[in-house]
Amino acid sequence: MTVYLDHAAATPLRPEARDAWVTAAAAVGNASSVHGHGQAARRVLEEAREALAEAVDCDPIEVVFTSGGTESVNLALKGLWHSRPTGVDAVVLPDGEHHATLDTVAHLAAGGGAEVRPVPLDPAGTIVAPAFESALTDAAVATALVANNETGALNDVEVLAAAAARHRVALHLDAIAAFGSVDVSFRRLRGDADPGVGLCALSLSAHKVGGPAGIGALVVSRTARLAPQLHGGGHQRRLRAGSQDVAGAAAFAAAATTAVSDLARESARLTTLRDELIQGILAAVPDARLLGPPTRRLPGNAHIHFPGAPGETLLFLLDQRGISVSTGSACQAGVTEPSHVVLALGEDAVVAGQVLRMTLGHTSTSDDVAAVLATLPAEVARARAAFGGRGGTRS
Amino acid sequence: MTVYLDHAAATPLRPEARDAWVTAAAAVGNASSVHGHGQAARRVLEEAREALAEAVDCDPIEVVFTSGGTESVNLALKGLWHSRPTGVDAVVLPDGEHHATLDTVAHLAAGGGAEVRPVPLDPAGTIVAPAFESALTDAAVATALVANNETGALNDVEVLAAAAARHRVALHLDAIAAFGSVDVSFRRLRGDADPGVGLCALSLSAHKVGGPAGIGALVVSRTARLAPQLHGGGHQRRLRAGSQDVAGAAAFAAAATTAVSDLARESARLTTLRDELIQGILAAVPDARLLGPPTRRLPGNAHIHFPGAPGETLLFLLDQRGISVSTGSACQAGVTEPSHVVLALGEDAVVAGQVLRMTLGHTSTSDDVAAVLATLPAEVARARAAFGGRGGTRS
Repeated sequence: MTVYLDHAAATPLRPEARDAWVTAAAAVGNASSVHGHGQAARRVLEEAREALAEAVDCDPIEVVFTSGGTESVNLALKGLWHSRPTGVDAVVLPDGEHHATLDTVAHLAAGGGAEVRPVPLDPAGTIVAPAFESALTDAAVATALVANNETGALNDVEVLAAAAARHRVALHLDAIAAFGSVDVSFRRLRGDADPGVGLCALSLSAHKVGGPAGIGALVVSRTARLAPQLHGGGHQRRLRAGSQDVAGAAAFAAAATTAVSDLARESARLTTLRDELIQGILAAVPDARLLGPPTRRLPGNAHIHFPGAPGETLLFLLDQRGISVSTGSACQAGVTEPSHVVLALGEDAVVAGQVLRMTLGHTSTSDDVAAVLATLPAEVARARAAFGGRGGTRS
Repeated sequence: MTVYLDHAAATPLRPEARDAWVTAAAAVGNASSVHGHGQAARRVLEEAREALAEAVDCDPIEVVFTSGGTESVNLALKGLWHSRPTGVDAVVLPDGEHHATLDTVAHLAAGGGAEVRPVPLDPAGTIVAPAFESALTDAAVATALVANNETGALNDVEVLAAAAARHRVALHLDAIAAFGSVDVSFRRLRGDADPGVGLCALSLSAHKVGGPAGIGALVVSRTARLAPQLHGGGHQRRLRAGSQDVAGAAAFAAAATTAVSDLARESARLTTLRDELIQGILAAVPDARLLGPPTRRLPGNAHIHFPGAPGETLLFLLDQRGISVSTGSACQAGVTEPSHVVLALGEDAVVAGQVLRMTLGHTSTSDDVAAVLATLPAEVARARAAFGGRGGTRS
């Protein structure tokens, strides 16, 4: 038996997404061609756009398909930055954002003259809203995670979006970890913000909701000023050039539709499983400690500090038992360094090296939780023993 | 019966590509995760990289997967441009390049200070090699199509690449229309060029060889200096951030492997069909005229001028009969303007408005050719009659 508790890195493809892909991919033609074959492909694409728009509560024309979350974040931040009003150069960047955001903002700072304004997290990992609002004064662009991908912390994005609208700053929200797990309404978050300010763009990724990898979307408000980042051909409101991935879009839409329609029931189910997992671990490993907010977190996320047990070692030991977990984001491509998210909680590098992220998803069962609870305590003891109880500073 | 003669826009998905996608997509895990599920995904990804490297004759590490041809071209041109030596600002841009190239270079000229050096085509649509070489003096970057996507003209890319190496200019080749139809060897084209000059990057797209849309690759020489265009995570030699599309890569590799291994036989088969199509049309419509080179063209490409018959009208009439053809590139997303490629042949806008591109591919049969020959002459006559013999200047 293998146990997959890394749904935040990639959740298994849903059968309806696979079937939508196979059906759409069997059709012949480029959706930009004007003949019958092309127009049939175009219809499938536009139906997918409509379904995704319904799932995230926006207008279909606001859905710009991309190749995934990283491209969506790059397009949002660079696109808003390069279309900013003259005379404002600050980017509001909360601590603990995803590397796609961090690296893109660093690029804008290094090459484009962006002034980076950090915003702290509270000890539970939530963006401090008054600090975020203060940073908005005369800023060009602001960004925020709807839910943190490591801690699962949910941010007060309604408050952040309203503040951005008031301060007339263009806001990007990264909903990649949140979409499909908690309610995300682009329309409601945007509210009645004036054209070009407030919530302007929102990033989504298919493979976090049971769609395929290689497809994502950026929801771009009708009134946003956003410079394209891929050039060549006038596809998708001239915001994103390139022949469109009709089958990927259809699969993404199918997965998103299922995820959103199952959300209430599935959220309750995963919350129960997650709390069983957390309580079981805290009972069996008394000095273990839940990071992130106790309840205001993603339903499937358990992010736990095991004092004295190096996360890398624990991950390895669990992997030997067929249990896949994570020490944090998978998105650093194997690079081992202390999680900047854990550091942003006010923890030190030693703690950051002793953390496991376990994330549940649509295929998770109580058997998975039972398997972890039957295995993890002994492996924590082994990991501690291997390090002489000193715990794992990362060498 | 429907007849699909627009393989240059998108060729049908090959069964082996579909099967590779379904198999790979059913596996669980992000290829950047270090646990067993992630490493299994990583193995599928790296096998795909190796297979694609073999098909295009490069080292596996030189294959950077992208979301398709447009992203590959953008990454190549912007990446090479932003890493250029100080003091050189010229981009060598042959006439008749694809819009992904044109629009990207226009962006570099407008925003980045690139000096654009055009290079003419000969009347058959082939890049004039001595003019290309002259333009290389003190240039930063050069680009060229291996095969033109509209006329099918094959360029002397061995000569162009050797000239770039001699002049110590970084060259990008757009092999999107050529790969899988004619022999493309990155290793041979690069030759013994010094590090960072000569052929540095080569663009590929899966859906032109029977793979899915939404996946492509940029072959990047080990020694090329290339700035990444997507930020966030150190994937793929830090050249292209983003969770990798394992299933798309596997499907692309499967399609490319089949296309390249069938190339000699399929090229001969398509050349025969294409010549039957061209000769049949020229016999039935005596004043019709083949554009592009008579023989040194893509095996499946017929690009024909029908004096007095507006291309848009012909396309519509043929579409009514279930025959899908093109007036040129599908990549302008429905925008109707005279083809810059036809203008680059030295033809005028009237001629550019009276052209059809018919492209054959792996599913094409002699029945398709027979269907066109049975239908097209009468439709040309109807199109001419509808326009009173005046022919179609585009209104």
